[in-house]
Amino acid sequence: MSFLKKLKNVSTENDSHLCVGLDPDLELLPSCLKKEAESIFLFNKAIVEATKDIVAAYKPNIAFYEAAGIKGWEALYKTLDLIPDHIPVILDAKRGDIGNTSAMYARACFEELGVDAVTIHGYMGSDTVKPFLKYQDRAIFVLVKTSNPSAGEIEDLLVESSGERRTVAEVMASLVAEWNLQSKMEVGAVVGATYPEDIRIIRSILPDETLLIPGVGSQGGDLESTLSVLKQWPNSPFLINVSRLVLYASSDEDYASQARFVATSLRDRINSYLRRAN
Amino acid sequence: MSFLKKLKNVSTENDSHLCVGLDPDLELLPSCLKKEAESIFLFNKAIVEATKDIVAAYKPNIAFYEAAGIKGWEALYKTLDLIPDHIPVILDAKRGDIGNTSAMYARACFEELGVDAVTIHGYMGSDTVKPFLKYQDRAIFVLVKTSNPSAGEIEDLLVESSGERRTVAEVMASLVAEWNLQSKMEVGAVVGATYPEDIRIIRSILPDETLLIPGVGSQGGDLESTLSVLKQWPNSPFLINVSRLVLYASSDEDYASQARFVATSLRDRINSYLRRAN
Repeated sequence: MSFLKKLKNVSTENDSHLCVGLDPDLELLPSCLKKEAESIFLFNKAIVEATKDIVAAYKPNIAFYEAAGIKGWEALYKTLDLIPDHIPVILDAKRGDIGNTSAMYARACFEELGVDAVTIHGYMGSDTVKPFLKYQDRAIFVLVKTSNPSAGEIEDLLVESSGERRTVAEVMASLVAEWNLQSKMEVGAVVGATYPEDIRIIRSILPDETLLIPGVGSQGGDLESTLSVLKQWPNSPFLINVSRLVLYASSDEDYASQARFVATSLRDRINSYLRRAN
Repeated sequence: MSFLKKLKNVSTENDSHLCVGLDPDLELLPSCLKKEAESIFLFNKAIVEATKDIVAAYKPNIAFYEAAGIKGWEALYKTLDLIPDHIPVILDAKRGDIGNTSAMYARACFEELGVDAVTIHGYMGSDTVKPFLKYQDRAIFVLVKTSNPSAGEIEDLLVESSGERRTVAEVMASLVAEWNLQSKMEVGAVVGATYPEDIRIIRSILPDETLLIPGVGSQGGDLESTLSVLKQWPNSPFLINVSRLVLYASSDEDYASQARFVATSLRDRINSYLRRAN
């Protein structure tokens, strides 16, 4: 089943636009778990079991697994096995390289790890994404305007392009539109909730593409401002990603039930905002 | 010992500016090795033993290991153990993310894998590099102007910056200069041999920083044009990286001796060009 179909199904079934980031930081694990690689899987298992009926997707961030070495990788494989098949998995890997290397990354993500989607750095242009585009029915999310404070150092630079002045992020969004047209997979964009005005501009360039929106929660992005923009394109797909706010809702033994509580609140806040009359 | 000191020592000892990329593609391994993950280490071992007295550095490309799964990761760890301690290792990982995630990537690269240097995507700005900068004596190489055909789609965009028109790559090079000034590690740049004119411009922005230059060999970069630019800054550090041309010099049992032959020829061509009177 295609990424988009899978996303639509689970989003409907769980009535959710919420993506939960699986970023297991050993230092932040609840006190009942040992600060060792073996705890990663136990933690993820509890989080997934507590949230699988309220999420639209999961987004494991590969950095947190790599940092724990081979055992971290084993935990990633086991976590992917654990996530129910009908829930799309977006691997937050931010990969991007020349053609023959990107082909290896694509193989690693889509064949070895078998995820539905991957995040991608588009700085090097089309060569980076082409090897991924061959995997029809999967998805990639290209970094367009990221959620972090220094995002603008490169992404906000004003360039002369097609006779008008646009930001680098806007040019990247136009490339995403082209790549999406050229391929049989879903090519979407990462846009940070910390910059709602940029979401509006990028959504106007990408009215039909899926937006993956991190930055709500620990990063300080404003959920309502973000939703007020997204609401203007009522049928266009998007995911609001939250990681730390859900994962580390409690540092005690009730961490899974607290994660469920926070995730449910977020899901419901998103839904009620979207359904409220303007 | 710092990356720079290590590089200077081995570069002097082996009389070499050559970096050999360790990109073990199972499909391209010599016919005497089975096309399975276990062969990666055997192949790398033979290549390293055949070239360790003629290189200035090694650059394992992590994509080729990830593509082989957990066994690929094990082969990467074993390969890193195998490389003599006095030879600097640049992990070609092209990492780059928001602060807390970049901190995990930095830990993965510098603590878990224990390499001397890493390649970095700077699209997201300073937040991406800051967690790496804490590791004094190591190095990062930020992608500035990459070697691939589509590099210019983003990197060549003209921006208004500090009152003049510069490319995105030039702005990135200026950031590299700032980051290098701010830190106690070496912050260098990746610049493709396929664009010698860009090397000249970027070298003038980064006269003292180490340049990592891929693109010679399979990618078609011109070695002599590249060297004619580098020669204008005779005391500035650089590495010419070659991967496929050396690794797959022969598909038969003589692959290691052929790799040595090609690597030696390249090293000597570089040296004789640099030493030739203008």
